[in-house]
Amino acid sequence: MDRNIQVSRLDRQAVEDQEVEIVERKGIGHPDSICDGVAESVSRALSQLYLDRVGKVLHYNTDETQLVAGRAAPAFGGGEVVEPIYILIVGRATKEYDGEQLPVDSTALAAARDYLSEAIPELEYGTDVVVDVKLGEGSGDLQDVFGEETQEVPMANDTSFGVGHAPLTETETIVYEAERALNTTYHDDHPELGPDVKIMGKREGDRIDITVAAAMVDAYVDGLDEYDDAVASVREYVDDLAREYTDREVHVDVNTADDYDEGSVYLTVTGTSAEQGDDGSVGRGNRANGLITPNRPMSMEATSGKNPVNHIGKIYNLLSTRVAESVTSEVDGIRDLQVRLLSQIGRPIDEPHVADAQIVTEDDVALGDIEEDVLAIVDRELADVTDVTRSVIEGDVSTF
Amino acid sequence: MDRNIQVSRLDRQAVEDQEVEIVERKGIGHPDSICDGVAESVSRALSQLYLDRVGKVLHYNTDETQLVAGRAAPAFGGGEVVEPIYILIVGRATKEYDGEQLPVDSTALAAARDYLSEAIPELEYGTDVVVDVKLGEGSGDLQDVFGEETQEVPMANDTSFGVGHAPLTETETIVYEAERALNTTYHDDHPELGPDVKIMGKREGDRIDITVAAAMVDAYVDGLDEYDDAVASVREYVDDLAREYTDREVHVDVNTADDYDEGSVYLTVTGTSAEQGDDGSVGRGNRANGLITPNRPMSMEATSGKNPVNHIGKIYNLLSTRVAESVTSEVDGIRDLQVRLLSQIGRPIDEPHVADAQIVTEDDVALGDIEEDVLAIVDRELADVTDVTRSVIEGDVSTF
Amino acid sequence: MDRNIQVSRLDRQAVEDQEVEIVERKGIGHPDSICDGVAESVSRALSQLYLDRVGKVLHYNTDETQLVAGRAAPAFGGGEVVEPIYILIVGRATKEYDGEQLPVDSTALAAARDYLSEAIPELEYGTDVVVDVKLGEGSGDLQDVFGEETQEVPMANDTSFGVGHAPLTETETIVYEAERALNTTYHDDHPELGPDVKIMGKREGDRIDITVAAAMVDAYVDGLDEYDDAVASVREYVDDLAREYTDREVHVDVNTADDYDEGSVYLTVTGTSAEQGDDGSVGRGNRANGLITPNRPMSMEATSGKNPVNHIGKIYNLLSTRVAESVTSEVDGIRDLQVRLLSQIGRPIDEPHVADAQIVTEDDVALGDIEEDVLAIVDRELADVTDVTRSVIEGDVSTF
Amino acid sequence: MDRNIQVSRLDRQAVEDQEVEIVERKGIGHPDSICDGVAESVSRALSQLYLDRVGKVLHYNTDETQLVAGRAAPAFGGGEVVEPIYILIVGRATKEYDGEQLPVDSTALAAARDYLSEAIPELEYGTDVVVDVKLGEGSGDLQDVFGEETQEVPMANDTSFGVGHAPLTETETIVYEAERALNTTYHDDHPELGPDVKIMGKREGDRIDITVAAAMVDAYVDGLDEYDDAVASVREYVDDLAREYTDREVHVDVNTADDYDEGSVYLTVTGTSAEQGDDGSVGRGNRANGLITPNRPMSMEATSGKNPVNHIGKIYNLLSTRVAESVTSEVDGIRDLQVRLLSQIGRPIDEPHVADAQIVTEDDVALGDIEEDVLAIVDRELADVTDVTRSVIEGDVSTF
Repeated sequence: MDRNIQVSRLDRQAVEDQEVEIVERKGIGHPDSICDGVAESVSRALSQLYLDRVGKVLHYNTDETQLVAGRAAPAFGGGEVVEPIYILIVGRATKEYDGEQLPVDSTALAAARDYLSEAIPELEYGTDVVVDVKLGEGSGDLQDVFGEETQEVPMANDTSFGVGHAPLTETETIVYEAERALNTTYHDDHPELGPDVKIMGKREGDRIDITVAAAMVDAYVDGLDEYDDAVASVREYVDDLAREYTDREVHVDVNTADDYDEGSVYLTVTGTSAEQGDDGSVGRGNRANGLITPNRPMSMEATSGKNPVNHIGKIYNLLSTRVAESVTSEVDGIRDLQVRLLSQIGRPIDEPHVADAQIVTEDDVALGDIEEDVLAIVDRELADVTDVTRSVIEGDVSTF
Repeated sequence: MDRNIQVSRLDRQAVEDQEVEIVERKGIGHPDSICDGVAESVSRALSQLYLDRVGKVLHYNTDETQLVAGRAAPAFGGGEVVEPIYILIVGRATKEYDGEQLPVDSTALAAARDYLSEAIPELEYGTDVVVDVKLGEGSGDLQDVFGEETQEVPMANDTSFGVGHAPLTETETIVYEAERALNTTYHDDHPELGPDVKIMGKREGDRIDITVAAAMVDAYVDGLDEYDDAVASVREYVDDLAREYTDREVHVDVNTADDYDEGSVYLTVTGTSAEQGDDGSVGRGNRANGLITPNRPMSMEATSGKNPVNHIGKIYNLLSTRVAESVTSEVDGIRDLQVRLLSQIGRPIDEPHVADAQIVTEDDVALGDIEEDVLAIVDRELADVTDVTRSVIEGDVSTF
Repeated sequence: MDRNIQVSRLDRQAVEDQEVEIVERKGIGHPDSICDGVAESVSRALSQLYLDRVGKVLHYNTDETQLVAGRAAPAFGGGEVVEPIYILIVGRATKEYDGEQLPVDSTALAAARDYLSEAIPELEYGTDVVVDVKLGEGSGDLQDVFGEETQEVPMANDTSFGVGHAPLTETETIVYEAERALNTTYHDDHPELGPDVKIMGKREGDRIDITVAAAMVDAYVDGLDEYDDAVASVREYVDDLAREYTDREVHVDVNTADDYDEGSVYLTVTGTSAEQGDDGSVGRGNRANGLITPNRPMSMEATSGKNPVNHIGKIYNLLSTRVAESVTSEVDGIRDLQVRLLSQIGRPIDEPHVADAQIVTEDDVALGDIEEDVLAIVDRELADVTDVTRSVIEGDVSTF
Repeated sequence: MDRNIQVSRLDRQAVEDQEVEIVERKGIGHPDSICDGVAESVSRALSQLYLDRVGKVLHYNTDETQLVAGRAAPAFGGGEVVEPIYILIVGRATKEYDGEQLPVDSTALAAARDYLSEAIPELEYGTDVVVDVKLGEGSGDLQDVFGEETQEVPMANDTSFGVGHAPLTETETIVYEAERALNTTYHDDHPELGPDVKIMGKREGDRIDITVAAAMVDAYVDGLDEYDDAVASVREYVDDLAREYTDREVHVDVNTADDYDEGSVYLTVTGTSAEQGDDGSVGRGNRANGLITPNRPMSMEATSGKNPVNHIGKIYNLLSTRVAESVTSEVDGIRDLQVRLLSQIGRPIDEPHVADAQIVTEDDVALGDIEEDVLAIVDRELADVTDVTRSVIEGDVSTF
């Protein structure tokens, strides 16, 4: 097989070297991320259901969860949700196969419940949040084979585009790692920090400003002084973390919209702004690599919730990122790499219309020196395209 | 005070003596009863919420729960719900008082969840059943005083009618007690019997036919033989129970629509037919005394879910039954008693426009002999009208 | 064929001769009646759809419409709906037949829209009222034959009970006819009268009190004086109408809850109280004969929306009323007639388990003189049971 | 005032000169565009409502419309919608002001109805599509002043980013203009072409491939031959149109997924794929300039439906595009211009933290020659920021 892989020079500065850089990450408790997470959990659960019941993944697509914000009355020491959040899972799924009914609705709801209880533990399922589901009937004839025994490479049924890049810039790294750390390690010791953490990074020249909006959970905060301590603690933690990744000047701000005199602080009952006025939906937040990076080309495709067997947009967005990461981890001398995959309708998805790897090399490296290595890695990763599907189904890869 | 109480002869035979009698009771797991139970639980929870927060019951009305049936795939040994039941709690409630927001939606959902988990334990909240709520804003100005300290008798704001009767006939007693026993004592030893038990009693002369439709729970039934045993066990149990209440000829049938050859039996995953095609709503099933009795006058009023402080229809239906029961328990010689209460707009509800007690006496008793006793009891019970409200709020009285 | 028809003396006074009588009719614009009307329109439309497409009526049941009240800001000269009414059509229907998809949802919505625009013309579909539909899949195997060519008598699949009576008493007649006249003839000349007219009749001895609650439409009422005129006009009209049907003393009250000093009057934007806080659902209002008559036995069955081919409860309620009317129109000397039909599972529905006609004759008529005529008419009407189905489908008979 | 405006060289080739270019536009009938259009219509209607009623725009945000696809049975000559599309309008709005209730729900529904009837005329409102609305209560205290008399420049309350560019490349122009022309001029003469037109442009070097997916409306297409003619006609039309904008090699494909042998063609009842399985939501399709352009930086912000008075993301995305267009129309010698606006919390939005204009000049033009002109235009447009708000409210600018 002869894949159409092109390696060329990226005709711009590395993002790391540009004058202004903007990066954002919406934490897992942000209303848009909640929708991404629910949609992807539902997708994984449906894939597993189909594999368990019929030995292969049937047609489905669940990339349209909608969240309608609730109303809450937070209070130091513990307030309450007054009007529940409403989440509507939307999509299509195959509901019957070989005469057997498949519990797609119940499976979707159970997946949403389990995901929410893990991601937003303070949110009581069924009272603080109502989850409903509208799954239309999927097309029985749209079945690609991805089963326990055979994993055929499906044909592209759409013209679609995926883009990935590597390595992350310092600012990207800080924004991404700060959210991940706050929502795991830090949270373990600081239950007052809710999962709705939104981090904005802005670099101008050699100064990096990190702005964190962090929803505090009222049950763990007894008053304004404790709140102020909690904010200061987040600021310090992020500041320390940032310095691990950069030598540039770093400034961290947390909850800048607070006004202590007015008693207006970012206090919540459940740790997410979805409890009070912030709606959300799938594909409006982080891209497949977990970041929003206006300095780089991005795909509009909503990756979360899509069928990982045959949805070319999902596969190519995840695959292009994986390719970029593999290349930069295996090949030295790359300052910025952008991988684009463009599908060709009717061709196997491991044979894209174009796979182009555009590179900004380090000053002392010529493109020609690394071109062949890059080609080989791209080729290898394309050949292994079904592994993207597998890792999505097994939950080994994040989509937002 | 001089209440307009009338005692007169009931111009018909006692129902016990009529040639044909029909009685029905829908068990607590029947879709209509589920709605009644949810609506009444929500009502109780809102009353409690208001008492806890503001010391008096504010305006609300939640008598319109709608259940949309799901789909299930029952199987001997344990099947599954395929499409969840959908329950919509409908009504109005006061959401703000003195500047404080009151969590009426969350309270309603929590009440529904708790009720369902007790009444239909096999039904998993949030996946087998989705509960949503649409409570409009109640009128802030429609407030009667029923609080911790003062319990004023409210004014009737509608022309409404309540009717009660006592004592129950043998057939009524059997139908009522059979459902109660099956869903409590019997169920404790027989988890295979689901709560959706519907009992129809028909008496022609001295023959009583009891027809039971009993939803069996598949997880506890391993095959057709066990199913057949389960059905036979219910039949025997009801047969024995019936004979405690009558010397008439009794025939009991259970699940008459079963067709073993076709493999068509009344098997369910959750113990309620709501899982497969049977919708339900409030006020469509049992009357306030727990029975449907076409031989007797009935009120169309849906009692469950209504505000017990000021909803005259609810209060008069419960009160008329209570009056009838008190009279027959305290006064000998009554074969059939029917109590009707008719409200008068603008008058306190303990002064009905008419309270009439119509009586069929035993053969050897003259109406005149008991008239004064009856009058006194009716008067006493009317004077104690607010106790109906209290007992409803505390859950001491069933409304369906 | 030998039908089990029994004719006997009714062991009570004619309702006309009882001391106290209560009658109620909820007009077509009442929230419960709106639901009845929508459900029955949907049922008719589905029957027609099935007849048109496959030549016979397939399985469906749509007797569970739920209405959630809106909010409105009425004002003399014309106000507006602020929050729309929400109507949910609930039930099951066969969605596919012989490989052809049947547009049951769209048909249901179109039927609701058409019905509402006729019954509540001031209500703008889609903005003042949102109608949604949740129809589960009907059982394909539950098909009775009612087609263009053959109209088999179906088997009873349930134990069900219908009851009808005739003739109407004076009070019943007045209540029924007043609502009908107000909502047709009177409304033609008085657009200010909305369709939500609720009429309560109470007779004590020879005094009849008629209480009318009539929603006025604000666009046609410019101020309090005009409103007062409108109320007075309704009062006069009903008073005149009542006197056509009785020589008893008649008192008519209209909108007794109005308080002009407080500016509290029964003014609406759309002519129904559903716009402001009054929820509704099917089967909570008028019985199949259009009235609520606590003096008489009533069936709890919700007639509206049920499948008229095989739903025994619907058929028997309509048929028993039809039988009663036929008997009293053809046989002289009947002061009060009550017809009860009880089904027997597994038998054709024209062979009820019991059909009993209980009669209070005029003073000078002996039961024996008319018994045979009555028997013959009951027998004839039972034989013609499928005509009930036909007339329901064609909309020739009202169910509420 | 001294605005922080920077003019610099764009450190990459003009997109027109890059080797590979990808552009996409989802036509107004695409499910995502339907959501954008409904959301923006609702936003405009609410702005107008507030201006009409209280003289200034109150707090609202309606950028979250969710569309759940229906099911349809298209057929040559005219098929039907079987299951309606469901659209849920989500957001928050101020519902009461100075004691007056504001009809935000009804206004939103009316706006959606009017928009849909214009954009998707074959879609019957209320039967082919059900629209519902969930608008939470907006914060009364979040009020910026944009009224009839005063139009203050609001403060930025968020760190947000907008990006615009000009001029469009040939491929971008073709993609944009083709959709616009097909959905206006062409459609006027060809009612068989539905509004769900999706256009993908791909340029490799000097070859441009335009792929059109065009939903045909079955009522206007009598058979496969007519369908084939319709497709050919679109192809020819787009081919001609493309040649007006480029001298490059152009290839146009229409409905490439059709399989005539299988009878599988892109035939619809209503002209949108939302009728059959394609869900949609706001912000998932075209960016504010009407295109999806992975070759260029894009904002993730969903512009449609946001409040145009104070939502900095919406304003900056529209304003940056407007600035870019003004500059390139007034200044000669610019081959590619990218304008970025970054807000600064707490500063007036006409004083962005950074406004940078990055330019690729024509070969014979030096940046220094045009820098001052560019600066002046950027400054002028920033000063006129409230005009963006005005033109959005008046519907003079498209957001998708």
